[in-house]
Parts: sequence; C-alpha cells; structure tokens
Amino acid sequence: MKKISVDLKIIGVVHSLYKTISDAPIRGKNEISEIKLDRDYLEGLQDIEGFTHLHILYWLHKSSDFSLLVKTPRDTIPHSVFSTRPPHRPNPIGHAVVELVERKNNKIIVKGLDAIEGTPIIDIKPYVKSLDVKDDASSGWLKKGI
Amino acid sequence: MKKISVDLKIIGVVHSLYKTISDAPIRGKNEISEIKLDRDYLEGLQDIEGFTHLHILYWLHKSSDFSLLVKTPRDTIPHSVFSTRPPHRPNPIGHAVVELVERKNNKIIVKGLDAIEGTPIIDIKPYVKSLDVKDDASSGWLKKGI
Repeated sequence: MKKISVDLKIIGVVHSLYKTISDAPIRGKNEISEIKLDRDYLEGLQDIEGFTHLHILYWLHKSSDFSLLVKTPRDTIPHSVFSTRPPHRPNPIGHAVVELVERKNNKIIVKGLDAIEGTPIIDIKPYVKSLDVKDDASSGWLKKGI
Repeated sequence: MKKISVDLKIIGVVHSLYKTISDAPIRGKNEISEIKLDRDYLEGLQDIEGFTHLHILYWLHKSSDFSLLVKTPRDTIPHSVFSTRPPHRPNPIGHAVVELVERKNNKIIVKGLDAIEGTPIIDIKPYVKSLDVKDDASSGWLKKGI
C-alpha cells in the first residue's frame, strides 16, 4: 500500500454539542455547530457569507482502524466502505455539505455538520449548484439516504 | 499554525487525458477519466456501481504554496481561498462530484473529475441526494458557477 507523509494544517476546530462519538446521532442533519477558524486564516474567509452552503472537510481524529466491508445501522448486511460513509475509512477524512447560518469574524455557525467537539477542520470550499447538485442521482443500496 | 502529521494512504490513481496542469481545462465538467484502485482496496468497491454519482477526494500533488486571496479566471478581483476552489489551498485536497460511467473490476470510469494524470486518490464516498443536493443554494460572488 502506497502512502504519502504530509503535515495537514488544522485551519479550524469544531465546537459541537456532541462531546464524544457516542453522543453523536447517526448522520444527524440539523445540528448547529460552530467552526472556529484559526486567526491565521481569517482573510481566507472573506465574503464567504455570500454562500448559503459549504463543503466542509475534517479530520476524523477519533477514528481508529477501518474495514473494507462495514455494517451500517441502515441495513442488516455489510456494505463496502467506499459505498458508505462511516468514519472508519482508509483515510479518516469527513465530508459534509452544511448550511451556513451565520458568520461572526473567525467563527462560522453551520447546520448539518456531523462532527464532534474538537474535530480539526482541514478545508472549506463553496457549494456551487452547477457543480454539486445532481438531481438525477441514484443511491444504490441506500435508496432512502444514509 | 497547528498541524497533524499523517500518512495518507493512496487508494488509487487517476488516469487522465490531461498530463500536466497546463493541459487541464478550468473546472471542465465533461472529461472522462479512469480511477485505478489499488487492488488492496478492491473489496471496498463492492456494489459501488449501484450509485450514479460519487464524491472523489484527491491529493493535489502538484500544488505548491497557497494564498488566502486568489485571483480566479472568473473575476477581475481576488476572492478568498475558502470561497473559491483553486488547487492551491492550505491543504491541497481536491473534491469533485463525478458521474460513475462504468466499473471494471478495480477501474472506475468517471465523468467530471478535474484531476491530472497520476493524481493520488485518497477517498471515494457515495453521493446521496438527501444529504448532498441543496437546490436552494446560492453561490455568493460566483452566481454563474465556477
């Protein structure tokens, strides 16, 4: 297995009501969290409030090992790791599309980020309809959503 | 600036018509590429072909330094890095929503991956309408898409 050794920059940290993994709901959608950006990156947020939705990438720091087949709460049989979104993955990178509720200086209040307290944020990208909305998408075994 | 030192696993590699950054179009949408998964992860692709769209995360291995304000081809004034999608970012992680055209064993043919030849793939996640489609999204300064 090939690897790349990198230093990931922690651009910010999540503040959430969920303090531990067992506190967090399974793919809850409506939780409000705060992303507190490191002030070194503040200029990188300029005009972000013009976007209603963002992609958030985060490092799943509590994730340990992974399996290629995963038992999820949504089915009785296991499914493959790349056709599911469990936190235990070959690279523990979380991704969520969130609603941007409010920005206050280096703090962004978001809705729908399923990350626990203290989770390191590694990237923020704008959600753009022309690139990200796939209305005709079909979700394999997961017809009802995760 | 805080950092985490990690070994990212290269789960696969992109084969693209675009051999260098200068070959690649600006956010082209219709290119066909192949993701060749490392055979060690093959079981992790099981039943992936049931999904029409995927999120692909990749390591922008040719990205060098970054700026917090970026001049993009879409506007005459600079915009902040987290409200744009240039490859030069604090953490050079690319994200694209792609169409899954075909799977052949450990190879996935996809449409819409703006990554050059040899780009390391670090995660594949299923695109799920109930989580990822935000029809009411508004795109800030980028009203026409990136």
